[in-house]
Parts: sequence; structure tokens; C-alpha cells
Amino acid sequence: MRMYDIIAKKRDGEILSSQEIEFAIDGYTKGLIADYQMSALLMAIYLNGMNEEETANLTQFMANSGDIIDLSSIEGIKVDKHSTGGVGDKTTLVIGPIVAACGVKMAKMSGRGLGHTGGTVDKLESIPALKISLEKEEFLKQVDEIGLCVIGQSGNLAPADKKMYALRDVTATVGCLPLIAASIMSKKLAAGADVILLDVKTGGGAFMKTLDDAIELAAAMVSIGEHNGRQTAAIVTDMDTPLGYAIGNSLEVIEAVNTLKGKGPKDLTEVCVYLSAELLRLAGKGDYKSCETEVLKVIENGKAFRKLREMVEMQSGDLSVIEDTENFTKSAVSKEILAKTDGYITAMNTENIGVAAVLLGAGREKKEDQIDYSAGIILHKKSQDIVKKGDALATFYSSSDEKIIDAEELFLSSIIISETRGKKAPLIMAKVGAGVVQKF
Amino acid sequence: MRMYDIIAKKRDGEILSSQEIEFAIDGYTKGLIADYQMSALLMAIYLNGMNEEETANLTQFMANSGDIIDLSSIEGIKVDKHSTGGVGDKTTLVIGPIVAACGVKMAKMSGRGLGHTGGTVDKLESIPALKISLEKEEFLKQVDEIGLCVIGQSGNLAPADKKMYALRDVTATVGCLPLIAASIMSKKLAAGADVILLDVKTGGGAFMKTLDDAIELAAAMVSIGEHNGRQTAAIVTDMDTPLGYAIGNSLEVIEAVNTLKGKGPKDLTEVCVYLSAELLRLAGKGDYKSCETEVLKVIENGKAFRKLREMVEMQSGDLSVIEDTENFTKSAVSKEILAKTDGYITAMNTENIGVAAVLLGAGREKKEDQIDYSAGIILHKKSQDIVKKGDALATFYSSSDEKIIDAEELFLSSIIISETRGKKAPLIMAKVGAGVVQKF
Repeated sequence: MRMYDIIAKKRDGEILSSQEIEFAIDGYTKGLIADYQMSALLMAIYLNGMNEEETANLTQFMANSGDIIDLSSIEGIKVDKHSTGGVGDKTTLVIGPIVAACGVKMAKMSGRGLGHTGGTVDKLESIPALKISLEKEEFLKQVDEIGLCVIGQSGNLAPADKKMYALRDVTATVGCLPLIAASIMSKKLAAGADVILLDVKTGGGAFMKTLDDAIELAAAMVSIGEHNGRQTAAIVTDMDTPLGYAIGNSLEVIEAVNTLKGKGPKDLTEVCVYLSAELLRLAGKGDYKSCETEVLKVIENGKAFRKLREMVEMQSGDLSVIEDTENFTKSAVSKEILAKTDGYITAMNTENIGVAAVLLGAGREKKEDQIDYSAGIILHKKSQDIVKKGDALATFYSSSDEKIIDAEELFLSSIIISETRGKKAPLIMAKVGAGVVQKF
Repeated sequence: MRMYDIIAKKRDGEILSSQEIEFAIDGYTKGLIADYQMSALLMAIYLNGMNEEETANLTQFMANSGDIIDLSSIEGIKVDKHSTGGVGDKTTLVIGPIVAACGVKMAKMSGRGLGHTGGTVDKLESIPALKISLEKEEFLKQVDEIGLCVIGQSGNLAPADKKMYALRDVTATVGCLPLIAASIMSKKLAAGADVILLDVKTGGGAFMKTLDDAIELAAAMVSIGEHNGRQTAAIVTDMDTPLGYAIGNSLEVIEAVNTLKGKGPKDLTEVCVYLSAELLRLAGKGDYKSCETEVLKVIENGKAFRKLREMVEMQSGDLSVIEDTENFTKSAVSKEILAKTDGYITAMNTENIGVAAVLLGAGREKKEDQIDYSAGIILHKKSQDIVKKGDALATFYSSSDEKIIDAEELFLSSIIISETRGKKAPLIMAKVGAGVVQKF
């Protein structure tokens, strides 16, 4: 077999066999195939596409290129959940404890913030002393014992993806659906869960700007999971507005804690209850309705919150901040950002609001930057809310007044206030699974 | 400017500006742009194409990437002629002397044989002692004095093409019309002639297998030449049958000498007269008809042959073989290849006949191979000829009987003899120039 012929075949719009895809991915990972050949293949894939089977095979060989986490020592069905990333998305911190409290085990490896979106690992690290790096045995033991562990991605998961992503990044082949789907799912397959639930964000604050694109990505990822023998489903949720009111690491942990106690924002609670019930259903815990009842019960009776507490304790985190979130370190400076006009908020540029939080210190502008865990934004108003001139739209938290000045202008230009209220899109926009796409 | 954006633009089917193409070619030649980015761009060009202006700009910057031969010290209009390569194509050895004898100067750099096709430089080297490598000053002086010099490609002509071709060769991006056209024409532009006449071969023995593909390539190359201020035209000629009867280096020189003396094969003579008259017309020597009369005159009166003699003398070649071609070294062994059946030759697999000549020693199987200048094939029968079982189809010349045995089987399987004569295609199939395509 020759890489040349594989490139030529895809160039001519033909379908690559499983053996050909394996040859390319395996050879590239091992350094036997040069970057210039892989980039030609990637461009041919970008322009001529890949069918479901090719994409599933591609993902499988990318997953197989490195370590595969073996969760078989843990009893029962193991679930995983993945969000494509958004602003204020702290769902993992809520859903993990809920499903574990309901008896379904979640062994999760999470990522760090990227661009305008936050990352679960950064949020967890805002809890003092919490370890996000565990030995494999500790990780498996914790999941088996308490049903929940969330750590940073460790080991050599899907190195083919890492190498290919770096190449795509410099050859203008990132924005290609089968490649995006394969990149995400290769890591999910390698992470070893039996059930994978995907939360594909769509709208101004997400990587997928339109509902149709998000549904297409969701369907591609579900197909990959199913082709590879995993119970997989996806929902598409709105990211035209930040999720919840808190943006920034410890601020989001606080909101997650409140949500686990049944006192969270309506939108965040709705998404978390839905995702949790859906995970339970996929894990075979009954129909959606009965799973939802179970989810509401563990929030109500405090089991869900206690599960988070248990996880933080097992991962050596400072429990005082969980028991009383007032104990989180406060930011050095804060400022209320006031509305300059009357009207309704008709739109929020969610990506720029995410960038404003980064400017305050909640994220990294450069890879090497240190995160200020107490920095961020608490929104007081969101889309469709009525505001009067002088009302506080948000409170900013940061380490310096300069950062607040930088972020304020961007934030204010991101909030569109007009005379008409506008219409709210549904929060859960579509559901994809078992070959069915359902729009709401 | 960033290479990334240039790749993305072409990926999205947009038109690249002159500045963008310059940035890519210049950066790649200097090693500032990596192979993997160039190969992604090449694949995007392969799949999304380039318009005439982009192709002309691409060619210009490829030509500008190295030395540009300055022919301005030579008086008058300088012409160049390029063949896309075929089997038995010794036209340069005939046309060069003819046009020079008619007062039009040809400063030509030729190539070596490639695969099943021969190369003018190899043919010239079959003349003992002939120098195909001259100092630039000698080259210019010879053209100025006698109107003709044919040497091997020297200096650093179009290094961008060399680098890009090597990359295309391993990334399945060779067979792309704008890239093929740019590759050929970049070297022609760098070679500095005012007039460029292209002989695009089509048929089984050519790189362009169909007439339409050949016409498309011809039109693309003419457009490039015209966009770059050169008087350019192309003809498409048949290569379904070898040109002339001789295949192999000294065998072809002998046939060229005969043709210059007016005793050449009909097809070779026809193509050479046409190309020569067309070159004279392009150089402003009058209309086609009067140029043709002039061409026939210099063949008739011996001036054309004497011009070849003059060139060989100036380039230190052994004149005795030109004065009497019987003086060429004979091959060690020869064999008549006999027809095994009666009928008409309805088809010749010209590519395989070229390969048979290579097997006899007339070409290189590997780059390092030595050529046997006396090896090759003299055909006795060609398409549409009637043959009887036992008739000699060809005589093979080689250094060993083993080579003859190897080549014989391939040769015989390349000659299709059947009961009906079949129809001969016109030798000159199309003419492309000044925005007009004329099929014959």
C-alpha cells in the first residue's frame, strides 16, 4: 500500500477502505508518512468529504493510535459527556454529581479553556488543592468507589489526533465536519466509556454558529459512536446567550454548587436536568420521564450536592469552599457595569462576552498565561430582560481596574438593547440519536 | 500576508491575487513556507482549479524564482519550441536548423528522456564529443553567430518548479492542468525567447491521451505565454503512432539528417515543415504559405542540413557522423522482428513501443542508467500498413540478445494486426493561438 494512492483515491472522490485509513493514520502517527502527504490527504478530505463509515474508521484508528483507557475493572455502565464548548458552560460540574448520585458512574477526562470558552479542568482548579492529575489506578478506584471522577486529560490519548490537529491548524483544514467529529470522538472512544452523550452548542458563543451545522456535527459524532459500539446520543443546546449567569472559574463553581442544591439559574438547571436524565436513560435506567424524576429527587434530597463534596474530598480539594462558597478567594477589584439606555436586551454577542471574561483574567490569552480563578463576570441581565438606564447589567471581577476598563467596552458593545423584546430560542434545540433528528 | 489564508482562499474556490501567488511561490522557493502548507495549496488548486490570470501569474513567479536567460544581446527575434514528449520525436533536430537557415534564431535548452519518451539532449549526445553544456557567453555567442544552439538545461532555471514538481510527485497533484501548464511554461519563460511554439502530443504515446485534454493544455500554455508578453502558439499533433520510423538516439539523429536533406519519412517531414513555417510566421517572416515555401527551399538547397553541420561543429561534435551517418557506431546485435500473422496494422501501443526501446538500451529505466546511443528500433511498418506473416515489422538494435528477447514480446503485443485497415487520424490535429482553437 502507498500513501500516494490513498491521496489520489480521495482526491478523485472515491471511498477509502478501512485498511487504507489505517495505513495512513498508523503511518502518520509513527512518522513513516510525511506531513506534506498527510496535509494533501486532509485537503482532499476537506474538499471531497468522507462518508459515515470512513469517518467511523478514521476515528477508530485515531483512537487506537495511543492509550485506550480500560474501564472494565469498574462495575456497571460507565458514562461520559462532552460539550463542544461555550461561555458559562459549567454543566459537567452539575451533571457528574447528579448521575453518580443516581448510581451511574462517570469517569471523565476534561479539557482546559480554549479561546473564548472555558474548560472544566480550569474551573476545578479554582478549588484550592484539588488534584486534577491522578494515577490511572487512583482514577479507576475513585470511579468504582464513589461513581465519579473528573480529571485532566492524561496519558497518550489519541496522539494521531494531536498530530493531525496541529497540521490542520496550519493548512486550513480545521473546519471540515468529518475531521472535527473524528477529532472529538477519537478522544471519547479512547477514554473508554460505554455511553457517550454529546452537548453540541450552537449560536454566537459556540464554534458551530448555526443550528443546521450543529445538528450535522451532532449526527456525525453519534454515527461514529454507534459504528464503534458505544451507546451515543447528542443534544444541541443554545449558546446565543451565556449559560447561567456566572462566567469565570470559581464564579462558575459557585453557580454549579447552587444548581446542585436546587437554587441554580433556570436555563442551567434545565440543561443539566435534561442531560443528566438523558445519560441515565442511555445507561438503561428507564425511560426519560422516570430518569428525570430520579434526577430531580437527588437534587431535592441533597444527594447530588453531597456527591460533588465527596468527589472534591477524594481529589484532595479544599472542602471549605464547597461547604460555604463565600470562602472562595474574592477578586481584588470589582465593578458594576451599568446600562447606558432603556429597553430590552435583544441580543448578546456571547463570544465577545467570553473574550471579556478572558480579558478580566478568567482565561488565557496566550497558552502560558496564568488564570486568575476569582476573575470573571456575573451577569444580572440576559436576553429578553427589560433594563433601565443605570441598571447593573453585570458585575466584573478582576485583579486590576485596567483589566476592567479593557473588558467593559467590549462587554457593552456585546449587549444589544432595543425597544422590542425579541423572541427567545428554545434552550434545547435538537436531539440526535439512534438515526433520528428531532428539532424543538 | 499568511500562507494559511492563501490556502483557505483557494480551498474555498476563490481567486488568488498576484500578490498572494507571489508570496506563496517566493516563500516556498526560499524555504520560508513548509512543504505541508504548499501541498495543501497544491491539492486545493488541483480540486478547485485556477483561472487564466492566476495560472499566468503562478507561471511568472515560478519563472522569476531563479535565473532568467537574457537573450537581449542577440539581435533579432529569438524563437523557442517545446514538445510535450513522445516516441520518435526528433523534431528539434530538424526544426532548429531549418528556422536558423531561414534567418530566425533559436536558443534552445532541451531535456533528457523521461520514461518511455526520448529527450533531445540524449539524442545530441549520440554525436561523439558534442558538447551539450556551454558557458552562458558561448551559448549566446553561438546563437548570435550561426542562429542556432541546442544545449541541456543549465543554471538555476525555475527552481520553484523543480521543488514544486518533486512535491507534486509524492502528493498526487501532478495531473492538474494549470500546474502542468505552469511547470512547462515557467521554464520556457525563464529561457528568454520572444516566440514560443508548443507541440502538444496526444494519443497513446503521449502524456495527454485525448485530443480534448491536449487542446486544453495547449490553450492553457498559450494563454500563459500571451499573458507574459511572449508570442505563443501551439499545435496538437498525433502520437498514437511513433513519429517517423526511428526510435533511439543515433537512429533518430540519422533520420533527422535524412529529413533535413529532404529524404525523411512523410509524417516527420510534415510535422517539421509545419512547425518550422509556423515559427517563421510567429517571428514575423510573413504569412504561413510564404514561410512554408521558404522552409521547403532551405531543405531543397541544402542550407538546412548545412546549418545542423555548423551547429555540431560549433559544439565540438564529431562531424564525420553527420557527413556520413554510416559512421555512427553500430549496435553489437540486431534482429528483425517478424509479423506472426497477415493483416493491417490497426493500432500501435506507442507508449509500450517506447518502453521496448528503453529495454533495448535507448533510454534509462533508472535515473543513473547509461544510455546505449546505438540501441533502438527502426520500424518497417506503421499503422494502416498491410503486412504478411513473416514480414519484418521492425529491426531491433541492442547490446545483447537478452535485451532483444525482453523487448520483442512487449513490442509484438503492442502491434495490433487485424483484417480491416482502420482510419488514420490527421497528423496535425489542432492549432491553438490568439484565442482561437482550430481542429483538423
